[in-house]
Amino acid sequence: MKSIIVKTPEKGAEIKDINLTGKGIKIKILENGVCGTDREIVNGEMKSAGLPGGFDFMVLGHEAIGRVMEDGNIFKKGDIVMPVNRRGCGKCLNCLMGRADFCETGDFVEAGIKGMHGFMREYIYDDEQYLVKIPEDIMDIAIMAQPLSDLEKSLEEILNVQNRMYWKCPDGTYGCRSALVTGTGPIGILISMLLKSRGFNVTIANIRDASEREARIFDETGIKFFNSSNGYGNINKKFDLVFESSGSNSSLIPQLLGLLRSNGFLGLFGFMRKGIAQISSADWQSFIYRSITITGLINGQKPHYEMAVRDLVEWKHIWQKSTASLITNKVSINENEKVLNTLSSKKPGEIKTKIVWH
Amino acid sequence: MKSIIVKTPEKGAEIKDINLTGKGIKIKILENGVCGTDREIVNGEMKSAGLPGGFDFMVLGHEAIGRVMEDGNIFKKGDIVMPVNRRGCGKCLNCLMGRADFCETGDFVEAGIKGMHGFMREYIYDDEQYLVKIPEDIMDIAIMAQPLSDLEKSLEEILNVQNRMYWKCPDGTYGCRSALVTGTGPIGILISMLLKSRGFNVTIANIRDASEREARIFDETGIKFFNSSNGYGNINKKFDLVFESSGSNSSLIPQLLGLLRSNGFLGLFGFMRKGIAQISSADWQSFIYRSITITGLINGQKPHYEMAVRDLVEWKHIWQKSTASLITNKVSINENEKVLNTLSSKKPGEIKTKIVWH
Amino acid sequence: MKSIIVKTPEKGAEIKDINLTGKGIKIKILENGVCGTDREIVNGEMKSAGLPGGFDFMVLGHEAIGRVMEDGNIFKKGDIVMPVNRRGCGKCLNCLMGRADFCETGDFVEAGIKGMHGFMREYIYDDEQYLVKIPEDIMDIAIMAQPLSDLEKSLEEILNVQNRMYWKCPDGTYGCRSALVTGTGPIGILISMLLKSRGFNVTIANIRDASEREARIFDETGIKFFNSSNGYGNINKKFDLVFESSGSNSSLIPQLLGLLRSNGFLGLFGFMRKGIAQISSADWQSFIYRSITITGLINGQKPHYEMAVRDLVEWKHIWQKSTASLITNKVSINENEKVLNTLSSKKPGEIKTKIVWH
Amino acid sequence: MKSIIVKTPEKGAEIKDINLTGKGIKIKILENGVCGTDREIVNGEMKSAGLPGGFDFMVLGHEAIGRVMEDGNIFKKGDIVMPVNRRGCGKCLNCLMGRADFCETGDFVEAGIKGMHGFMREYIYDDEQYLVKIPEDIMDIAIMAQPLSDLEKSLEEILNVQNRMYWKCPDGTYGCRSALVTGTGPIGILISMLLKSRGFNVTIANIRDASEREARIFDETGIKFFNSSNGYGNINKKFDLVFESSGSNSSLIPQLLGLLRSNGFLGLFGFMRKGIAQISSADWQSFIYRSITITGLINGQKPHYEMAVRDLVEWKHIWQKSTASLITNKVSINENEKVLNTLSSKKPGEIKTKIVWH
Repeated sequence: MKSIIVKTPEKGAEIKDINLTGKGIKIKILENGVCGTDREIVNGEMKSAGLPGGFDFMVLGHEAIGRVMEDGNIFKKGDIVMPVNRRGCGKCLNCLMGRADFCETGDFVEAGIKGMHGFMREYIYDDEQYLVKIPEDIMDIAIMAQPLSDLEKSLEEILNVQNRMYWKCPDGTYGCRSALVTGTGPIGILISMLLKSRGFNVTIANIRDASEREARIFDETGIKFFNSSNGYGNINKKFDLVFESSGSNSSLIPQLLGLLRSNGFLGLFGFMRKGIAQISSADWQSFIYRSITITGLINGQKPHYEMAVRDLVEWKHIWQKSTASLITNKVSINENEKVLNTLSSKKPGEIKTKIVWH
Repeated sequence: MKSIIVKTPEKGAEIKDINLTGKGIKIKILENGVCGTDREIVNGEMKSAGLPGGFDFMVLGHEAIGRVMEDGNIFKKGDIVMPVNRRGCGKCLNCLMGRADFCETGDFVEAGIKGMHGFMREYIYDDEQYLVKIPEDIMDIAIMAQPLSDLEKSLEEILNVQNRMYWKCPDGTYGCRSALVTGTGPIGILISMLLKSRGFNVTIANIRDASEREARIFDETGIKFFNSSNGYGNINKKFDLVFESSGSNSSLIPQLLGLLRSNGFLGLFGFMRKGIAQISSADWQSFIYRSITITGLINGQKPHYEMAVRDLVEWKHIWQKSTASLITNKVSINENEKVLNTLSSKKPGEIKTKIVWH
Repeated sequence: MKSIIVKTPEKGAEIKDINLTGKGIKIKILENGVCGTDREIVNGEMKSAGLPGGFDFMVLGHEAIGRVMEDGNIFKKGDIVMPVNRRGCGKCLNCLMGRADFCETGDFVEAGIKGMHGFMREYIYDDEQYLVKIPEDIMDIAIMAQPLSDLEKSLEEILNVQNRMYWKCPDGTYGCRSALVTGTGPIGILISMLLKSRGFNVTIANIRDASEREARIFDETGIKFFNSSNGYGNINKKFDLVFESSGSNSSLIPQLLGLLRSNGFLGLFGFMRKGIAQISSADWQSFIYRSITITGLINGQKPHYEMAVRDLVEWKHIWQKSTASLITNKVSINENEKVLNTLSSKKPGEIKTKIVWH
Repeated sequence: MKSIIVKTPEKGAEIKDINLTGKGIKIKILENGVCGTDREIVNGEMKSAGLPGGFDFMVLGHEAIGRVMEDGNIFKKGDIVMPVNRRGCGKCLNCLMGRADFCETGDFVEAGIKGMHGFMREYIYDDEQYLVKIPEDIMDIAIMAQPLSDLEKSLEEILNVQNRMYWKCPDGTYGCRSALVTGTGPIGILISMLLKSRGFNVTIANIRDASEREARIFDETGIKFFNSSNGYGNINKKFDLVFESSGSNSSLIPQLLGLLRSNGFLGLFGFMRKGIAQISSADWQSFIYRSITITGLINGQKPHYEMAVRDLVEWKHIWQKSTASLITNKVSINENEKVLNTLSSKKPGEIKTKIVWH
């Protein structure tokens, strides 16, 4: 079957006919999403990437929706499903409880990233326990459920951590809480929408003005935009939550800590590419005095995929323009060169690019 | 009445007769504990210190036990009690719920530190809701309940935060979890004892060998000691929890992050005095990839005082030598010079110094 | 303004012009929902009902959507909103935290039920903190958000209580858990949909066959139906959760306890009208041995209204036929007799009846 | 080795030399506690009792302390330990997480009760993971750690369930909460002490006056006593928590429900011996309206044994007379007849009887 393969840690990807079987029910892949991780792997920049045992190549791809080709125990022929991308180590308690996002051994595998073939191929075979049902109503944007699952998990973790004190507002909601999201990539936009839908006041920042497309989204969803090209000196606000999804320069971190109110939470999601965070003694004293926390946020598991699907259905209808703006490019698997191009570099203005197989 | 007063932000302390009344029941002070915060105030180094409104002085002291002088609604004449040192702002939800440790406004007051007269005086008057009963059995070490309350709160917060994943062991306890505590001051020793009593495997570190007194404590309680004068390169272990109580140099922090296992927690309690933490992009990537958290830990409230008292009773009997070693000096309030000396500088080998009023 | 008023505990209702002002922003009522509680009040059967202080009548109605008539601080002219029906006592901690559903004093008020004028009138004035935004997309079914809010709260409470043990499944979801719902009224149908949407396997029961309309809903949503006219002897299944919403005969309760698996939860929502539950010693022994719980479930507050709105948007699009089936009757406020009829008796086949003001 | 064996479901017990080996480290039994369950087994009244697979007898006993006879990985020769009595099914998630108290399959085993030889024998061999260290300081009362572990678990579960709302008091403690305990057997006394030590206001009830011994305990610990021989009509108080440990007559339950305040918790621990609880529709309506819960409470696991040990150390020193009163009889294993007598019937005034092996 046709597949997109990589030979990590070597650079490059190719579209090739390979032969791969597997256990579980057969699923015809309909679409793959392309994300920064795919490009890092293709560009040989991802250190934690690794081939599946016994193979000299790996099928790329961890974002996919597909159509079930045969009746299973849970799913029926014709159902649209999304496979969960990370699978547990089978040993630690978190993995035994379905929470490979908190794998303690590090021996988990990730489709198309580490130790497991990915989803950029004509067919996959998968155990039904790793599949999540996709309603036909959101077929157009369903591919966003994978990145959104990471953010559903992130928000769950944020709320769990903040359970260290009383963090709800006097009306029982989060309506009195303010969040700052840094970065307007797909992650920044999705977490902003998620926080907004849960009642937070949300400001999103980038070091440039919002694009027209972005501005449309922020307008419809009620998200405020802040141009941080001159830093945050003039933002004149403090936040209960800062969510870092720009993955830009570590030197940003001390500034973000300074934007937090007492009991504040700094969530790190974006992988910092360069720079050093220089955090002084005075910063740390204030960190303790104000009960601040910094937490690393990564990966969503099956329950988070389910939440993501529910949110996408809702958002599609309350935020029609915004959700319609999320998919910025579609590339057919038959256009080899375009596919390989999109896998190695991001187009300006891209939110999400899909590779279409049907 | 005789009192120890300061005129923060001015340096210095003096023992003086003052006239202070107050609401609530009358309590004769029996003992005060001296801690680093008192010395910082006396030495003019504590920025957040501040006089009570309308006064040009402040009675020092936030660690005290006293004897109730009259029957109240809850307490009886003769009861031994400890007053809670921080009092809420009366406005934010955390303060309304008795959790001024998480005050959101910053408008709390702290006895002998900020905005409220302290407990280093012959008598105080206090509302019974801020008093915690002390069993006669632990009169000798009861003064430790104040610093220990901060650590009971810290551990409660640590467990709440770690509730973001499954953190208990396959036998339902914390017996599979390892903790590193940095610093062997009273805080380091108390949190190590607390973690040990909750089932953690505990290593405590200092940049010198353990003193004889310390070694005796670590031996009896089963706490391991590590001399970190050459860093942690040869510790050959990873930890689920690192509790920083040395308050030494911020440059220690990146090293401590490197000692954490996946899902690890770095708790900052000690106020860093100098240095800069230089945390690289690679460090932050690993921080996210391993779901690490850094959390600032401060202050215990009434429920934590109650836990501290219960623990002290237990420890006094299972760890007799260790608890007997905690009070290293007693100074009578009548020895003016000694009192003022102990308030301005720490003696070598000190764990806890008490000022005795009876 | 035109209003529907009652003189509880007297029987009867009338449509009358009254004069009522109030604090807050002005809202034109668009629709009211009619529920069993309204009918109990009108029929003089509701003991906990009571007039607002200083009035000899009470405006009926606790389910309403309306259009905001003027710009407020949170809402804008033209926004569609739903007012929260229960308001806190202002004294107990739960009410201070926005959780009047757990009012400890019993001194809460409820619009149209107890101590507060209801929403069956041309206009209301309300504090914006008690209003929940309704997206235009669900205008047709939005009235269901009020009863659904009670069930969002119920499910939240169920999950909180079950947090006494590990209740999630090995894949991190609730996909291995089975729920039985008794009664196919609006509450039974809504909680079944909610449980289904959260991943539970759901069986709904009535003591007759499902109506055609009900069968259509159960078919689309994947809810199983069980005719319990001969009891549950032949259901051949055990459940992790039984949700009682029939409010029929107390003698049902021991049977329901027998249907629970170990660690099971029996949620009581429907107000039992008659009968006695006779629960034997052997039943209670088994109750303890299997760690069962029975919990009374009532009322949702603002956060639950918000969840209800999000769910309704989702359900409208994944379960189109079912959501379209929920509103079985619409009555114009101008048809006096019909309005008064619908307030005193339920039509066969009714799921929800709306009174329409626009 | 000498052992006390039963042939359940047959009546009777005998002291006999048997030959039993096992895996794990060797432990010399020092003492066994005798409890109601032992007597039910000996009297052939315990339906859930059952012999270990492949045996036609079972060693009795689930309460024991012993001395480790050889160095293990965790314990050293000479350590005093208590073995955990219930062991998981190895299949369900609760058992995998060390919480066999919430076993879902029912396939757990219990030493001396069901499917596993008990501890009334000269030696046992056990896996170290099931052993809990006993400090020498409490050797005299350590046997109470087994029943107390059940109550530590019960209180943990109560607090978890009550986490459905805000249940702490305005000072962050449980000082505003009142508990009623029914029954003054060892369970009633231990749970009362535990609740008292956690800050609750505790009333304990029996249908007779308190014995002198009981009165001494209640006086020292600050527990109030209520004689309920005429019911609870004149108790003139409501409770936030009622803990039923009398195991008397099911007809008591509706009365106890009536004693609860809003949001109240009725915990059932004692196995009801007779009677029927007749709970009317009005009772259930009030149950829902006031958000009441009834929960079955059973068994503690290793973390609860550890808590029990910590509490016993504390109580021994703050409540010396009370803890000294808990052990009412000691019988040497060499006094055959006395041993068999104590296993078949309870002496008047007994709190706890120990069989002594050393």
